[in-house]
Amino acid sequence: MVLVGIDVGGTQIKTGLVTMDGLLISHIVENTKTKQGYEAVLKQMNEMIFTLTEQQSIDVKDISAVGVGVPGTTSPDGIVYFANNLGWENKALAQDFAQLCQLPVYIENDASMAAMGELMVGSLKGVKNGILITLGTGLGTGIVLNGKVFSGSHGNGRQAGHMKVGENFYTCTCGGNVCLETFASATALVRYYEYSKKNQETIYDMKTMKTHLSAKEIMRAAKAGDWVAEKSVDRLIYYLGIGIANLINILDPEVIALGGGLAKAGDQLMIPLNESVYNQLYDKKRFFTRLTIAKLQNDAGMIGSAMFACQKINK
Amino acid sequence: MVLVGIDVGGTQIKTGLVTMDGLLISHIVENTKTKQGYEAVLKQMNEMIFTLTEQQSIDVKDISAVGVGVPGTTSPDGIVYFANNLGWENKALAQDFAQLCQLPVYIENDASMAAMGELMVGSLKGVKNGILITLGTGLGTGIVLNGKVFSGSHGNGRQAGHMKVGENFYTCTCGGNVCLETFASATALVRYYEYSKKNQETIYDMKTMKTHLSAKEIMRAAKAGDWVAEKSVDRLIYYLGIGIANLINILDPEVIALGGGLAKAGDQLMIPLNESVYNQLYDKKRFFTRLTIAKLQNDAGMIGSAMFACQKINK
Repeated sequence: MVLVGIDVGGTQIKTGLVTMDGLLISHIVENTKTKQGYEAVLKQMNEMIFTLTEQQSIDVKDISAVGVGVPGTTSPDGIVYFANNLGWENKALAQDFAQLCQLPVYIENDASMAAMGELMVGSLKGVKNGILITLGTGLGTGIVLNGKVFSGSHGNGRQAGHMKVGENFYTCTCGGNVCLETFASATALVRYYEYSKKNQETIYDMKTMKTHLSAKEIMRAAKAGDWVAEKSVDRLIYYLGIGIANLINILDPEVIALGGGLAKAGDQLMIPLNESVYNQLYDKKRFFTRLTIAKLQNDAGMIGSAMFACQKINK
Repeated sequence: MVLVGIDVGGTQIKTGLVTMDGLLISHIVENTKTKQGYEAVLKQMNEMIFTLTEQQSIDVKDISAVGVGVPGTTSPDGIVYFANNLGWENKALAQDFAQLCQLPVYIENDASMAAMGELMVGSLKGVKNGILITLGTGLGTGIVLNGKVFSGSHGNGRQAGHMKVGENFYTCTCGGNVCLETFASATALVRYYEYSKKNQETIYDMKTMKTHLSAKEIMRAAKAGDWVAEKSVDRLIYYLGIGIANLINILDPEVIALGGGLAKAGDQLMIPLNESVYNQLYDKKRFFTRLTIAKLQNDAGMIGSAMFACQKINK
C-alpha cells in the first residue's frame, strides 16, 4: 500500500507517491490551474494521481489515502475556510475530492503538513512538541503537539505569522499593521531594505548596478558589508527572535525548525538568531528549545500530507 | 477516597480536601512561612493536611494524592525551577513533599492548576482546548489542550504574560521591556494611570481626595468619567486584545476565561475586550473563540491541583 501527498500552492501543485514510512517514491509538479477555478484544480489533482500511478505501474486500489495541504485555513472536518492565493472560500475540499478520486481524503493547512513531514522523517523526528517556521513570502507556522499536527479547536490556530509584535511602516496582507510576518519574511526584508535605503546608493547597488534586490541578494549584500542590508537583516533577526521567544514562552517545544528560502542563509541567520531569541526569553537560565534548519525543503508538504493521511486512517 | 489540593502563594497557602468529582469539601488558609525557607513551608503544608483530616475525621490513608500549585516554573518530573515570590530555585518539591507527607504528590504551575479547576468544574467545563488568563499583579496563563494541562516539553510554556507585544515605559519583573503583563494587569493599570496623570488632578482625585488609586478604583473612576482612568483602561483593553488575539491566532481554543481581580469589572471589561480582540484577529470572519469570566475564583487553584493529581494517578 502507498499514500498520495498533494501540496497545492497558488502557483504550483506538487503531487507525490509516498510509502507508509514517509519515503517519496515519485512526484510530479504542475502549474496550478488557479484561474480556471476550484473544480478545474480538483480535476487537475485527480489527473496527477492518475499520471503517477500509470508511471509507477501502481493500481489505484493500492492507494490507502490522500492528504492535501492547502495554503489557507481549514476546518477539522475538511472544509477550506479561506485560501486567498487560490481564491477559495468555504469549499468542502475533503468531501469533493474524495468523491472525485474515490479515495479517503484528509486536508490540512500546508504549513501544518510540512511540519508533519519534518516530524516523521525530518528535523522534528522523534520530537513530542515541535514547530516548523517557513520564511518565504510570508511567515508560515506548523505546530506539532504530542506527536500530532495541532491547529486548534476550529482549525484556525498556528497563524503565528499574524502574531502582533510591534508597530510597522506597512500593512500586512491580512489587514493588520503589526503582524510578525511584516517584520520577518522575505517580503519584509525586501520592503524594509527598500524603505531604508530610499534614495541612497548602497555598496551592493554600486557593485551590481541592480536597483532592486531579492531577499537572497540582501542576505548576500549584508555579508559583503552593505550597511543598509546589514541593518535590514539585523532588524529581521530581532523581530524573528521576538516571535520565536513568544512561541517558546507559550509552547516550550523541544525543537523549532526554520525552513523556506531565507533559512538557506544557514549560520548567517542561525547564530545571531539564537542570541536574539535568548535575549527575549522569559526564563533565560532554561533555554531548552533547540533551533535548527528544516530538512525536507520542497518535499516536506507532499511527504507530510501523505503521513497526515496515514495517521488519520490508522487512528 | 479524597484528594488534597494545595495552592502555595508568596503570601498565603490554601489547602483543601476535594472529592474525586472536584467538590471542595473543606479548606484552610494560612500565611506562608516564606521567610523561614523551603523546609518550613513543606512542614507547614503537611500540618495543614493533618489539621484538615482531623477536622473532617478523615483517615490520611483515604487521601489518594496531593496536588500542589506553585507560583513559578516547574518541570514535568516535579522540580520547581524558579518561584521568585517564594525564593525557591531548583527544588525537588514533588519528591521532597511526598517523602514528608507519605502520599503521591504532583506539582504544576499555579495558573495551570487554576485552568485545570476551571476545566473540571468551572468556566472551561467540557472544553477540549481552553485558556485561563488571570489578571492580577501579573498576567498568568493556564493552558488546557486536548483536555489536559499543557506546559510544554520542559514545563516552561504557558508564560503568555511575557509575550512581547510593543514598547513600554517601564520594565517587567522578568527584565523584559515589552511583556504583555506590563500592559495588561492590575500593576500595569496602576502604573500607566500614575504615569499618565503626572501632576494633573483628575476628576476622581478631586472627588475622593485620594492620590493613589488601586486598579479596582481606576476601573470605577473610568466608569465615573475620569478621562485619565478611561484612557488607561482603554489602553489595557487594547493590549489585552492583542495578547488574546495572538493566543487565538496560535492556539484557537473554544474558550478563553478571564479571572483575577480585574475580571470582576464584568461587562465594563468584557464588552470592549471582545471588540478589541476582534480587531486584532487574523480571520475576522471566524471569531469562534468565546470569551468569558472564570467561575471558581479563589478556589480554582485548590480544586485544580487536586484534579490534576487525580488525573495523574488515574492515567
